Amino acid sequence: MVGRSRWPFVIAAALIAAPYLTATAQDLPQKTAQALANKALSDDWSYKFLESLTSEIGPRLAGTDAEARAAAWAVTRLKAAGMEVHTESFPMVAWLRGVETGAIVQPAPQRLVLTALGGSVATPPEGIEAQVVVFRTYAELLAAAPGSLDGKIAAVTEHMVRTMDGMGYGLANPIRRQGASEAARRGAIAYLLRSLGTDNHRLAHAGALNYANGLGKIPAAALANPDADQLERLSALGPVTVHITLTPTENKDAQSITVVGEIKGRETPDEVVLIGAHLDSWDLGTGAIDDGAGDAIVSGVGRLIAALPEHPKRTVRVVLFGAEEMGYSGKAYEKAHAREAAKIVMAGETDFGARRVYEMRLPAGATDSAFARTIAGLLPPLGVLLVPEPAQHGGSDIQEIGADGTPIVSLSQNGLDYFDIHHTADDTFDKVEAAELAQNVAVWAALTYLVAETGVDLRSPAKSAEKP
Amino acid sequence: MVGRSRWPFVIAAALIAAPYLTATAQDLPQKTAQALANKALSDDWSYKFLESLTSEIGPRLAGTDAEARAAAWAVTRLKAAGMEVHTESFPMVAWLRGVETGAIVQPAPQRLVLTALGGSVATPPEGIEAQVVVFRTYAELLAAAPGSLDGKIAAVTEHMVRTMDGMGYGLANPIRRQGASEAARRGAIAYLLRSLGTDNHRLAHAGALNYANGLGKIPAAALANPDADQLERLSALGPVTVHITLTPTENKDAQSITVVGEIKGRETPDEVVLIGAHLDSWDLGTGAIDDGAGDAIVSGVGRLIAALPEHPKRTVRVVLFGAEEMGYSGKAYEKAHAREAAKIVMAGETDFGARRVYEMRLPAGATDSAFARTIAGLLPPLGVLLVPEPAQHGGSDIQEIGADGTPIVSLSQNGLDYFDIHHTADDTFDKVEAAELAQNVAVWAALTYLVAETGVDLRSPAKSAEKP
Repeated sequence: MVGRSRWPFVIAAALIAAPYLTATAQDLPQKTAQALANKALSDDWSYKFLESLTSEIGPRLAGTDAEARAAAWAVTRLKAAGMEVHTESFPMVAWLRGVETGAIVQPAPQRLVLTALGGSVATPPEGIEAQVVVFRTYAELLAAAPGSLDGKIAAVTEHMVRTMDGMGYGLANPIRRQGASEAARRGAIAYLLRSLGTDNHRLAHAGALNYANGLGKIPAAALANPDADQLERLSALGPVTVHITLTPTENKDAQSITVVGEIKGRETPDEVVLIGAHLDSWDLGTGAIDDGAGDAIVSGVGRLIAALPEHPKRTVRVVLFGAEEMGYSGKAYEKAHAREAAKIVMAGETDFGARRVYEMRLPAGATDSAFARTIAGLLPPLGVLLVPEPAQHGGSDIQEIGADGTPIVSLSQNGLDYFDIHHTADDTFDKVEAAELAQNVAVWAALTYLVAETGVDLRSPAKSAEKP
Repeated sequence: MVGRSRWPFVIAAALIAAPYLTATAQDLPQKTAQALANKALSDDWSYKFLESLTSEIGPRLAGTDAEARAAAWAVTRLKAAGMEVHTESFPMVAWLRGVETGAIVQPAPQRLVLTALGGSVATPPEGIEAQVVVFRTYAELLAAAPGSLDGKIAAVTEHMVRTMDGMGYGLANPIRRQGASEAARRGAIAYLLRSLGTDNHRLAHAGALNYANGLGKIPAAALANPDADQLERLSALGPVTVHITLTPTENKDAQSITVVGEIKGRETPDEVVLIGAHLDSWDLGTGAIDDGAGDAIVSGVGRLIAALPEHPKRTVRVVLFGAEEMGYSGKAYEKAHAREAAKIVMAGETDFGARRVYEMRLPAGATDSAFARTIAGLLPPLGVLLVPEPAQHGGSDIQEIGADGTPIVSLSQNGLDYFDIHHTADDTFDKVEAAELAQNVAVWAALTYLVAETGVDLRSPAKSAEKP
């Protein structure tokens, strides 16, 4: 039972924060946040959560039975972790992978490792066989004349660049998102790209495309990096004929499910501190780094805060979003929660793997504030920089509510090797280091608790002034 | 045109070995060997050879059209490199991969990445579905009672150990070679093992098995490492049902082809210095490190020696063996060449990837000899140790002729990451470093040339004495 007066909480929190028994009431939130972080660092709950999710559920493609099983599993886990739990369903078109095979037919018969892009239309059941035109950069494809690819398969083999912050992925994204339509515009009958990935394994990187309106939809697939190399080498020697077969299907009546766990605020329960990750995953791996790790982090934070002797003043809401990979999560959440937008006092999302956090960015309204100085005091032992620049969109689950004015925080993780396994069959539990995952929980726990307990206003003055 | 007198050669060799113009006739072979090594280090011919083989031919499973295409390709290449070339065919049973799929059916439906073991029988077309019994060590399987696996699928998930010299693979080999028969002996209807590999990618490691006589043959496949982890985790929670479908076939009337390039000796052409590698490969990758690299190394050595102003005294024979992966190469070669066994004065094989050579072992007859001291003088700049212990069997292509008394040399390569990609789809050209490949050519060139030119007797006194 949770008391409503402040003093039992102060006493209990002081007991948790044992080294800080001399703390004054004023710095108690900071001390409790520090104690939460310390507890997270030596706790393997989130790691075990991730092990269970990736083993006992495994892949969980949006809108499938597997995603529904994951949601039921998550409900049980969040309840056991002390949260009030509910689910929110929404309609979606599920894309279901079929057969996917590729081969060089001429001049040197051999298999090509590829995977259909999410949303791709199918080839005929017998596949498509045609000469391939290789473009070593996406700009070269865009420069190709209309009709120049008539009857051909276009292949863009531009390399994505490895960076710590994932900028290489962001800038290469149009190659996957828009390349098929750009190829179709020029007459191509199918589209291949070098996987958006930084590894050199024979594992293709999945990911969704977006067909442009008014253009024919052509089948599209990502090649494993070594297979893109092979096409480059052989096409430099002469004409190359490729055969691909992709048989994905759609379920237009699918539902996705978002799972929500809450720790109701003890003073202002309608003010919500939202931390989220997405529960759906691509189907090739088991969604460990994308985004089981995020689910494990935010669920672990919820558990630690729920276990405090007293709930924070504001509500902490842990959201495990459905159908992020298919592009539904952000819009669906914004649509369902438009009315409470002004009450979401902070939103943060973790969807970049399980490596250490190295940077934190606060909303524009808080970059130079007493709150920033408080959180800054907690970060050095956690190995995190507080960056003066404000957070931008935060991530695809929360960018829509962020656009509505919800203050966004962002924590940058080391993504140097994230795109080695992102969206591949290699995204499995063994890739995650327990200590790095725990550091994420620690940083998110400290931040989430502080925002929930101190009642800080993170809205920028400008944004706040716009509100009626 | 190649002269028969020594002096034109001395002059020409001295020109190659420009820094050593003051060399006496006595140390000329050493200087020429050193010049060959230096030339190899700055030469990308072998690297380009490997690029072409792995791209323009690609996978080349023994006894298939692809292997035959590789042989025709190699004939052209070795001729262009200045060698006299012929082929030697032999009959074999070709094993042809079919469909291979695996899945956990209960309790958590998900795909398993696996690959059929070479030589495995097929499952019924609809596959086999049964409960899996997981053994975390091979010894546990061997300790299981007869009948204890009736109707079950046995899975051994023992880890192979990473070592520089490949000892971990050697000691784990019975798990793949004999595990299926040991499982069948105890009643199992199919056999799975954790891939003999040191990576953690979702790529299974192929490799041949050997069924024991008098036991039922059951289908057998290797799991990718993360998939073996998954079976371990789920089987610790309760019963696990697995479905596997493997549909390999056999061609009992296949032929394999060994390609031989020679530089005929100018004085004792019937004395043969044999260096070899195998031309066939597994079909999942393109056989870059196994063993296209070896083909590129020995072919590069042949080319460098053929380009000398004068052939060495003895014949240098470059052998690109067929059907090594299926276990035919060594026996076939020994059978075809039994009569000239006494004339093969040295045999060496390179079949351990493209990393640097770090150790050389000479035949027992030469470990403490003037020849050893000569070669030892060349090795320090190449980063190679001459180890006092004699070479053992050398490799599977030459172990049979070695057992007949042919002196064997062995060059150890750094194999720390060899079993990350060995026998997987990942065995592709991009994994090879040009400078490391060139170092191999340098060391083999120096050794091969010295043995061919100096006429050293590498037979051990004991072995020689045994000969009639």
